[in-house]
Amino acid sequence: MKLDDLYSELTLKTNAKLVLVVLDGLGDLATREQGYLTPLEAAWTPNLDALCKDSAQGRMIPVAPGITPGSGPGHLGLFGYDPLEFQVGRGVIEALGLGVELQPGDVCARANFATLNPKGIVTDRRAGRIPTETCEKLCALLAAKVKKIGDTRVIIKAGKEHRFVVIFRGKGLEGPLTDADPNREGFPIPAVKPRDPKNVKQKKMAKLIGEFYKAALPVIAREKPANGFLMRGIAHQPAIPLFEERYRLKPAALAVYPMYKGLSQLVGMAQLSGVQTLKEQLERYLVEYDNYDFFFIHYKYTDKAGEDGNFAAKKKAIEDFDAALPILLKKKPNVLAITGDHSTPCVAKGHSWHPQPVLLHSALSGADKLDRFTETGANCGSLGVFDAKFLIRIMQANARAFDKFGA
Amino acid sequence: MKLDDLYSELTLKTNAKLVLVVLDGLGDLATREQGYLTPLEAAWTPNLDALCKDSAQGRMIPVAPGITPGSGPGHLGLFGYDPLEFQVGRGVIEALGLGVELQPGDVCARANFATLNPKGIVTDRRAGRIPTETCEKLCALLAAKVKKIGDTRVIIKAGKEHRFVVIFRGKGLEGPLTDADPNREGFPIPAVKPRDPKNVKQKKMAKLIGEFYKAALPVIAREKPANGFLMRGIAHQPAIPLFEERYRLKPAALAVYPMYKGLSQLVGMAQLSGVQTLKEQLERYLVEYDNYDFFFIHYKYTDKAGEDGNFAAKKKAIEDFDAALPILLKKKPNVLAITGDHSTPCVAKGHSWHPQPVLLHSALSGADKLDRFTETGANCGSLGVFDAKFLIRIMQANARAFDKFGA
Repeated sequence: MKLDDLYSELTLKTNAKLVLVVLDGLGDLATREQGYLTPLEAAWTPNLDALCKDSAQGRMIPVAPGITPGSGPGHLGLFGYDPLEFQVGRGVIEALGLGVELQPGDVCARANFATLNPKGIVTDRRAGRIPTETCEKLCALLAAKVKKIGDTRVIIKAGKEHRFVVIFRGKGLEGPLTDADPNREGFPIPAVKPRDPKNVKQKKMAKLIGEFYKAALPVIAREKPANGFLMRGIAHQPAIPLFEERYRLKPAALAVYPMYKGLSQLVGMAQLSGVQTLKEQLERYLVEYDNYDFFFIHYKYTDKAGEDGNFAAKKKAIEDFDAALPILLKKKPNVLAITGDHSTPCVAKGHSWHPQPVLLHSALSGADKLDRFTETGANCGSLGVFDAKFLIRIMQANARAFDKFGA
Repeated sequence: MKLDDLYSELTLKTNAKLVLVVLDGLGDLATREQGYLTPLEAAWTPNLDALCKDSAQGRMIPVAPGITPGSGPGHLGLFGYDPLEFQVGRGVIEALGLGVELQPGDVCARANFATLNPKGIVTDRRAGRIPTETCEKLCALLAAKVKKIGDTRVIIKAGKEHRFVVIFRGKGLEGPLTDADPNREGFPIPAVKPRDPKNVKQKKMAKLIGEFYKAALPVIAREKPANGFLMRGIAHQPAIPLFEERYRLKPAALAVYPMYKGLSQLVGMAQLSGVQTLKEQLERYLVEYDNYDFFFIHYKYTDKAGEDGNFAAKKKAIEDFDAALPILLKKKPNVLAITGDHSTPCVAKGHSWHPQPVLLHSALSGADKLDRFTETGANCGSLGVFDAKFLIRIMQANARAFDKFGA
């Protein structure tokens, strides 16, 4: 029997409220340079400390040992979807990150403006990293000239510098395809191919990409230096079981950044939009408390500071969260989990594979006799080290939302 | 390669003695109300403390994260059988719990006496919870009148109050079937169907249940209030590889309650019966020490106290076990594991999903430098948090009962 089927079979409808707070990239490393303290350990967190007295702790492997996840797999795991089973193409992630509202079946590609020589050879894969404004101008030009290929709608959205995304909205289209990118300079743009040569929808999509190139390349042929473009990660929005059906929990997302709005939308979470600050997010949560069963609250600044390698800023971001925590605790959800989607160690200046710490608070979480919520403490927590995809199952259990298995 | 096949391939025959002591529902939670101590932490356990000095500790996930097991899956896991792969129907478990000696292929159903109105609508699914004596009388009546359906023998055994079990012993029969139970009042008894519509043996069984109803309902039609019955969890005793063949260990069970006798019998453990108290169990173990390689010793009272939410009684049950432990230690088995089949936290008043602590003592267990055997200590033990189905493999390894894998 498949484990997910067992979980479904045992899932009960309850009146419990579950809250998942994601401090993006929370996990970190203690190093000699940082006085052997992580930002979480160095931060002053009186509210987390008080909560921790009646909580369980543990550490979560985002995908698999040693795998560093992007935000996509990181969050899908937190939402309880095995990131290996539910793969979301880079094009889809980029489109979500740029705030495009995707529809089921949309095929997305991440694209780069590039420089081609007269023979069509790629001489600069990033067109000298043109400014964002140039990218926006070129995208507007393309969007104006290439609105459709046959019956398929083409949506073009500019990103930062040379980056943009192309969305194909039509019928009977599917990815994934191989890349329209030689992946190094000195070669022409290769024609895309279906990843599965027998898949008719992929074949149709590959043909469509060829036609798109034929229509779009002439539009920018006289531009300098961005007289061409490359496309990668061409795939459709995958079919993902809806969160509400999977867990019998009505979910809402409180996110500020488009990527996290998009990822939560992908699994069907209602978007409580119009909030900008953490304080606004938490106060909106209080207002909406009775309207949903599950709240996903995303906080970005821990990750940002980690990416910058800025220990002090990460410590400060954690302290800012701690200061706002009492707002959240005005309503007492039945189950509260506070964690990250992955680690972003300051010394790594980027995402990493290190298991992120997690704190779980409920009437049945028990207490791990730890004074603070930290990576080192979490190592000895009663939750142990576990795959992030199980967090929601443990939250469901703490909400008494599972029937007993067997007599 | 399947992991179980690797284990089998590497398994050696040794002269080692292995002892698994199950303190049912041992695991618990530290909560504010209980002074942040679990019963195991609060109990005075000088003998466990002394043993723990030279032992390893860890915590075991009974089935999967968040899943609360019944005694069936809990014990199958401890016996090394994946509870998802080897599922035992509720009817089989109930029959075992009532002390019925099952044979391979028997199909069992748990049944309730119920009240039907003249139109056959279920008006009370439990027939007003009739006294156990009435249930016994009605079962005797049914057993006298319905001994066979075609070639299939029918065995009826009364349980507590309105509960009983029906066993069908014949050829070519299989479950699982859907329930002959509307699961709420105001509806008629639905006809059962095969869970797998293509399974011929299930189809045959479904037809047989229909015939059983035709024969049995008239027998009690004039009774009040129990003039009908419902049947659920209809399934056959699954084919489970014998413990002795799987592990090359000759096993014996020392259990007092029928459920645990039945579960151990299901995997082929010899039943050392006639023991009632823990002291009797342990003394019998000493007597039988040379006759078997593996002893399963089941102690129920920790679970009972947990189910009652009685912290003091659970603490006392642990202290009683500790006081009897020196009897067991008169013979020094090569490997001794002391654990639970799941947690039964007093605050939950029932089974739970929280990983149970385990203590493992052998010449190769090492010492975890923990002063006591507790949930909190076990969080930092060298065994880590692992699936309960692996305990027996770790015990085999400690008994040097595995060859090296590869050169």
